[in-house]
Amino acid sequence: VSVTAAQGFVAAGVASGIKPSGDRDLSLVATADGRPVAAAGVFTSNKMTAAPVLVSSSHLRASGGQAAAVVLSSGNANAATGEQGEADATEMCALVAADLGCDHHHVLICQTGLIGIPLPMDVIRAGIPTLTSARRADGDTDAAEAIRTTDTVRKEVVIGGDGFTVGGMAKGAAMLAPNMATMLAVLTTDAAATPDQLKAALVRGVAGSFNVLSVDGCTSTNDTVLLLASGAAGPVDPGALDAAVAAACASLAEQMAGDAEGATKTVWVHVTGAHSDEEAAVAARRVADSALCKCSWYGRDPYWGRVASELGSAGVAFDQRLVSVAYGGVTVAHGGVEIDHDRAAVATHMEGRRIEVTADLGLGAGRASILTNDLTHAYVDENMGTS
Amino acid sequence: VSVTAAQGFVAAGVASGIKPSGDRDLSLVATADGRPVAAAGVFTSNKMTAAPVLVSSSHLRASGGQAAAVVLSSGNANAATGEQGEADATEMCALVAADLGCDHHHVLICQTGLIGIPLPMDVIRAGIPTLTSARRADGDTDAAEAIRTTDTVRKEVVIGGDGFTVGGMAKGAAMLAPNMATMLAVLTTDAAATPDQLKAALVRGVAGSFNVLSVDGCTSTNDTVLLLASGAAGPVDPGALDAAVAAACASLAEQMAGDAEGATKTVWVHVTGAHSDEEAAVAARRVADSALCKCSWYGRDPYWGRVASELGSAGVAFDQRLVSVAYGGVTVAHGGVEIDHDRAAVATHMEGRRIEVTADLGLGAGRASILTNDLTHAYVDENMGTS
Repeated sequence: VSVTAAQGFVAAGVASGIKPSGDRDLSLVATADGRPVAAAGVFTSNKMTAAPVLVSSSHLRASGGQAAAVVLSSGNANAATGEQGEADATEMCALVAADLGCDHHHVLICQTGLIGIPLPMDVIRAGIPTLTSARRADGDTDAAEAIRTTDTVRKEVVIGGDGFTVGGMAKGAAMLAPNMATMLAVLTTDAAATPDQLKAALVRGVAGSFNVLSVDGCTSTNDTVLLLASGAAGPVDPGALDAAVAAACASLAEQMAGDAEGATKTVWVHVTGAHSDEEAAVAARRVADSALCKCSWYGRDPYWGRVASELGSAGVAFDQRLVSVAYGGVTVAHGGVEIDHDRAAVATHMEGRRIEVTADLGLGAGRASILTNDLTHAYVDENMGTS
Repeated sequence: VSVTAAQGFVAAGVASGIKPSGDRDLSLVATADGRPVAAAGVFTSNKMTAAPVLVSSSHLRASGGQAAAVVLSSGNANAATGEQGEADATEMCALVAADLGCDHHHVLICQTGLIGIPLPMDVIRAGIPTLTSARRADGDTDAAEAIRTTDTVRKEVVIGGDGFTVGGMAKGAAMLAPNMATMLAVLTTDAAATPDQLKAALVRGVAGSFNVLSVDGCTSTNDTVLLLASGAAGPVDPGALDAAVAAACASLAEQMAGDAEGATKTVWVHVTGAHSDEEAAVAARRVADSALCKCSWYGRDPYWGRVASELGSAGVAFDQRLVSVAYGGVTVAHGGVEIDHDRAAVATHMEGRRIEVTADLGLGAGRASILTNDLTHAYVDENMGTS
């Protein structure tokens, strides 16, 4: 149960033929009555922006934050496809709008898959009527299936608020699945809220979840997170809505990290004692994105010297005489040198599915955390394949 | 032939027992008469600075740019070893100085190997007399052998100038060999030059060689490049000395890239048409350090969409309608979309040992190049091992 858990939404997922495998590849989330409701979106910062990102953000601007549906497709990212790509994404929105009886500006679009290949519009044109006619209140599982690419499991979440619900589905993790690129998430709620409220809740939720997730340091051309509010549950406490949206984002981000391409471990990198929160975030990301640290986690190796070396080259305030490093709460180095510690406890922690690395810089009160994973043979396998 | 090709230098390489394998692990480059000559050094920017880097830079400052010898050891980086590490490195310099009859400030030190482990000073104290007594004019091969860690071949160079010679040896590449970390290079020349001249030549040479080499984006705690000038060949044209030093650095950097850990391909990433040279360098490094691009090169896949996506997220001026990407001189994408091109020619280029990727941003005259390699199963193997 995911995007139709909140009242007022329907969903569908069908196979149109974009994927040669014949798996589901077209997905729809829509309001039950086809009328637009308050909506907000957060999009990739990559300047190599995919057509669906350009079209969705343009539609949200044109509608003043109103949407009746989101159409999603997998198998082709419609990125690096030029003006034709924008025309194709716009046409997909218009086809869905015609079936729903709404304005085409009220349809948003998300796409994921290969970069640089024109969309197979013939199969998509044929598939959209099948998609829209399949929409129903229990179509959320099919919808979440249809956005999977190299994901091994569906990512779904439902958060129950006080008198309202937030539900969502997602795929991928920031560029973790590059041949089938992108992280996409669609959230729905039955809370009543303005587009501005939704945008604020989404920005806050994304900052604490998807934006602290770093699988390989790459930012996709297509990353998109959308939130639609039907209002069916009436007005709610804004703080409660913020909290529920944040919890939904956090759950989906953890699910992505757990399913990251080829990963055997989820790793939280915490940096404390930095000069500022910003510097802590830079340092944590440096460690999280380090190929050397990622390989050592794969090898279950508590090689703190690599962590310290990355911190020292992160470009933030750093004094090697003050740094300490801990794995799973056991401090292995302090004052820049290794100290006596419980090696068995650390070894046991490194064997687990989830590793916690904490580095304290000893300089100030700045802190930040990044969620990442290990670098494995399977990651290389999945990413060396032909485009 | 390497560090003793220039007149006035001797070298040696012996096994002391730092490496459990029994391979050579102590190396020496010294002036033939044990007297100090003009010297200069360039060191890592990592703030997690290893003890030998602190000691060598301190000795160069104290001596005003004079050195009689460089002692090098492999198997233990003497990094993250605190005050004891500095005392140990200083003692190693003093032991060599006593044997050579020079001041201890006139001995520089380079070390490479594991981080965070105290130096085995007992075996080193016993090994240094063996090392210094083995020094001779044809000891350069032994010296270059003794600094190898995971290097599969020695890196040596000799550049003949007009009436003078520049020779050098090196190991590793910036953190390509993390368990046995570090890139080290020692260059010698018989040209007569001041320490300031040497420093300027070295900074220029390093900027165009080691500093455009990026194996995995990591910066070692121990990176060091040293240049000693015996003056035996007398004064030379400063421009000719600069050029010879630059050529020697470039050759050693190419040798490192070719021997990068687990790599099957050397890759030059060229960015042209950037807003500035600085922005071109940022963009080129983003592509070179991308795990996704590196995996695609391993798979011989000319997946230009990944290159464009990295350029778009590099944080520099970028317009996707203007970008073009070429492999081996064959343009595969122009104006942000794929164009007709000779696929067979590109496929042949991707099969080669050396790949050239050129991205033109279409914005200005800024250009930069980065030398890197692919990301392979063997890299993961070599870096997941226990510390």
